[in-house]
Order: sequence, then structure tokens, then C-alpha cells
Amino acid sequence: MATLRSAIFAGSVVAMAAGLTATAAVGADEPANLIKYRQSVMKAIGGHMGAIAGVAKGEVSFVGDVEGHALAINTMSDSLTRLFPKGSGAEAGETRALPEIWQRWSEFEAAVESLKSESAKLAEVARGGDMGAIGTQVGALGKNGCGGCHKNFRKKEE
Amino acid sequence: MATLRSAIFAGSVVAMAAGLTATAAVGADEPANLIKYRQSVMKAIGGHMGAIAGVAKGEVSFVGDVEGHALAINTMSDSLTRLFPKGSGAEAGETRALPEIWQRWSEFEAAVESLKSESAKLAEVARGGDMGAIGTQVGALGKNGCGGCHKNFRKKEE
Repeated sequence: MATLRSAIFAGSVVAMAAGLTATAAVGADEPANLIKYRQSVMKAIGGHMGAIAGVAKGEVSFVGDVEGHALAINTMSDSLTRLFPKGSGAEAGETRALPEIWQRWSEFEAAVESLKSESAKLAEVARGGDMGAIGTQVGALGKNGCGGCHKNFRKKEE
Repeated sequence: MATLRSAIFAGSVVAMAAGLTATAAVGADEPANLIKYRQSVMKAIGGHMGAIAGVAKGEVSFVGDVEGHALAINTMSDSLTRLFPKGSGAEAGETRALPEIWQRWSEFEAAVESLKSESAKLAEVARGGDMGAIGTQVGALGKNGCGGCHKNFRKKEE
């Protein structure tokens, strides 16, 4: 059964759900668990960005979805600074978060703030439905919102 | 510059954004593009579910984030049936979407409806903040919401 269930949903979310028999306590935010959580959050942000990009590039017609994707990113951006407490870098587990995050914390905070403001602006622009304005704002979100952290605060892929 | 930018954000969303110079036309929903879009949507859903699971399993303390994650899933669930038009199965590109989706469309629709209703219920339960109730509802979301489609309508991983 466990094997069947893990086949159903990669990453075993379903298997986990089936195992929730007793009431779980509120977590203690151990650094390794924090890393796992924020990677899920980043995966979600990446999925939303990929979807937004598909619309902005004119690959799909779902202009009406952009606002929802942008708002989801905006909601998650609220959590980002709290997901990077001191001690949750490479010393705590497998992560590409660089020590520069904590060395230049206010710059990191500003980059997170950009993700927040650029995604809010995209949600607003998306409501207007103008493809040109959406494309421009997706560019700004990618450059200032994603790039602001990924350029300086994330280890390059090897 | 292009190389630098693609190193910044895996999947080249930033590179794409930088390339948005002219106004893109609204997409024509070619099946291959649809597949790419819905995989981004599924990636986002998977990220949100992973985050929710981290809270429900007591790994992290961010109970206050669950509502936002559940609402994001709920918003995306609205789009799912439209992301699986006939002709967007394996004949159109690399996808694990099985032909059973179109052979048993009303069952597929019901499974999508479960994702919608179970995620809405999780958002509601999450507002209450009770870890036991959240755990139970995360189980229901995983089983009926994710599992409803992933059990019958998605090719197993090889």
C-alpha cells in the first residue's frame, strides 16, 4: 500500500497524508526542516513564474490566470525573510542559499521586498489584460523580483 | 549576458523576461505549449502541497501560511479541466497524462472538483488554526484532491 501510494504522488505527499493519524504538534523549525519548507515555497513560486511566462511569451491564451499566479507569488513573498533565519545556510543541510544572505541582510530584505512589490504590480497590470503591459511587468518581476535574490544570494548550479 | 542570466534562474524565466521586447500576442494554445503550461501549474500545486505537508507533519511552525497555500491550489484547480483539452495527451508531447482522462472525462472532472472542494475546505479549516483538524483535512486533500487524478489519470513513473 505504501508503495502504491508513493507511486501515486511523487514526493509522497499522499503517503504523508495517509500517515497523519495523530495530531501533529506545531513544528520547531529545525533548520533542515526550514530548508525543505522554503524549497517547496520556491518550487511553487517557480511553477507560478513558469505559468506566467507561458502567457507572456504568447504560448498560451490564459491571460485571466496571470492575476492569480501573481497574487500567489505575492502572498509567498511575505514569508521569505522569515524562511531564512541565521543558521539555515549550507551548515544546516543541502541548500544553495549563500552566506551573503546573512552578511548583507538588508540587501536581501530589499530584494525580497522587490519580489513583493513587482508581483503586486503584475497582479494589478494583469487585471487590465493588456498583453504589452503584462509582458513589461513580467520582465520587471523576473529581473528585480527573481533575479534580485538569485543573482547575488543563490549559489550557481554546478 | 544570456549565459549569465540563465544561470541566475533555472528554467530561464529571467532570460525570457529580458527577451520580452515586443508585445507578445495572446497564445493559440498549441498542445505542446499547453502541456508546458499545465506542468508549471502542477509544479506550483506540488510546491504548495509540499509546504502544507511540512506544517501538517509538524516540521515547521508556519500554520498561518496554510490558508494561502490552500487558496492558491484552489485558484489553480479552477483551470485544470481547461488545461486538458482533447489532443493534449502523449500524442502532443512529453506528458504523463493518460488517455483515460478523455475516455472517462466525467470522472476526471469529478476528481478536479474534489481538488477544488478539498482545498477550499483546507483554507477554511486552516483559518481555525487547529492542528488536528488541519492534519485531517490535509489527508483528505492528498487522498481525494491529488490522489483522485494521480491514481487513475497519470502514468506511473518508470
